[in-house]
Amino acid sequence: MPGESFVQKLRRVCEAHQSLVCVGLDPDPARMPLEDVLAFNNAIVDATYDLVCAYKPNMAFYEALGTAGLEALRGTVAHIRGCAPEVVVIGDAKRGDIGNTSRAYARALFEVWGFDAATVNPYLGGDSVEPFLSCQDRGVFLLCRTSNPGARDLQDLTIEDDGEPLYMHVARRAREWNVHGNVCLVVGATYPEELKRVRAVCPEMPILLPGVGAQAGDLEAAVRNGVDSEGRLAIINSSRGILYASRGPDFPQAARGATERLRDSINEVLCQEGKPWS
Amino acid sequence: MPGESFVQKLRRVCEAHQSLVCVGLDPDPARMPLEDVLAFNNAIVDATYDLVCAYKPNMAFYEALGTAGLEALRGTVAHIRGCAPEVVVIGDAKRGDIGNTSRAYARALFEVWGFDAATVNPYLGGDSVEPFLSCQDRGVFLLCRTSNPGARDLQDLTIEDDGEPLYMHVARRAREWNVHGNVCLVVGATYPEELKRVRAVCPEMPILLPGVGAQAGDLEAAVRNGVDSEGRLAIINSSRGILYASRGPDFPQAARGATERLRDSINEVLCQEGKPWS
Repeated sequence: MPGESFVQKLRRVCEAHQSLVCVGLDPDPARMPLEDVLAFNNAIVDATYDLVCAYKPNMAFYEALGTAGLEALRGTVAHIRGCAPEVVVIGDAKRGDIGNTSRAYARALFEVWGFDAATVNPYLGGDSVEPFLSCQDRGVFLLCRTSNPGARDLQDLTIEDDGEPLYMHVARRAREWNVHGNVCLVVGATYPEELKRVRAVCPEMPILLPGVGAQAGDLEAAVRNGVDSEGRLAIINSSRGILYASRGPDFPQAARGATERLRDSINEVLCQEGKPWS
Repeated sequence: MPGESFVQKLRRVCEAHQSLVCVGLDPDPARMPLEDVLAFNNAIVDATYDLVCAYKPNMAFYEALGTAGLEALRGTVAHIRGCAPEVVVIGDAKRGDIGNTSRAYARALFEVWGFDAATVNPYLGGDSVEPFLSCQDRGVFLLCRTSNPGARDLQDLTIEDDGEPLYMHVARRAREWNVHGNVCLVVGATYPEELKRVRAVCPEMPILLPGVGAQAGDLEAAVRNGVDSEGRLAIINSSRGILYASRGPDFPQAARGATERLRDSINEVLCQEGKPWS
């Protein structure tokens, strides 16, 4: 809706669809049951949009396919806007550059691609993040503690000042930088203890949790530790587990089944926590 | 030449052109004297290619212009390959994602775009960098200490283990990860003391130095502290100072003049250091 902030839009779709599920639209030609990326994505969207709060196309998979890939991405975003305008679309781009250049990236992600939100790498610091944040109606998901094994290499280094790991410094900076209320975080579902610590210092920030499904994160712990005090504002992403649930012609139904199971499993945890959908 | 590594190609063009200059091809419609990005870039390339070792298009400026921007980038790379195949082209993309996704980015940068090298953000750790490194004939420039003011926010945090800042950990990791001899670093010319420390632990690695010109780094200190023991393997980038040296129709000549002055100033420092071109 016009004038709505990213967090408002996110809350609205989560309530409407009773879902914290995000489907990662990461087309991999080696695994897709169709050759046509746009047709594949559209079939996935058609089969799942009423069950999700978000779609998250990762730019890498489209860029790897050249012009045709980028055209497919454009078509996919248009298709989502057509059939499910209430669903948020997160451009998973992990961009970040010096201020002048981050401004160009913000324009690309929010104006050219029209994403509701984007993922941003914080390594370059505050002035690299600011041009994204100044697009006040868009969400900015800062990488905090990522889902991969190598996350330990730098993100877990202990900072001398306070004995806390680097990713906790990112979480604290994220809170400081959140003057427009549009900062969000990325924390891997594969690391529930780290997630708990981050949630404690950022109690009211949306957190995107990749790493369930193919990356085998513990879903229950991720939900429990990822949601806010009301059982909301966690976005739980699955990509490969949904897209490639079947490699036969029944892939849309299989994707719907996998999405439904994920949504229901999450909602069961919310019920156990005494925070069901109203 | 076929079978040549990135570092070999870089050394060859530096010697042939007696230059450590890289021109950053960052087209900004608000400042360009021509509307046509490809025509602008081609004019800059035609006016400067014999004076440089590298061109560095930053993806952000092309992505911000949508499909037309990406077409202009494609045409620019083809133009450089046509008139100056000896010059290296560095895709300034600052990418980095979990392993599966970094593989897609590596394909995009090295196969789709055909860059000789790319810049990569190390925040996600070893497994996010590995897919780039496994393209053994391409250079991988890891962001170490960037040129912007915000670089201090995270990169300067002191790590408890050894009392060294985060960026020095990145430099040490870069050395460990360098099993194929294709790891390079990015260190801002705006921070000559930090550059000196990095060069000391990575004595033989190419270092890309952004931040002279518009960002006002101290050129002499950057050259002195950035080169290896033989006065080589530093790549000194200027973007705005060259591209927008004139906003009139004489912009190619003005760009050539600015490039020549930068090359000569650098070469003067090399002479003072007793490391002139042969």
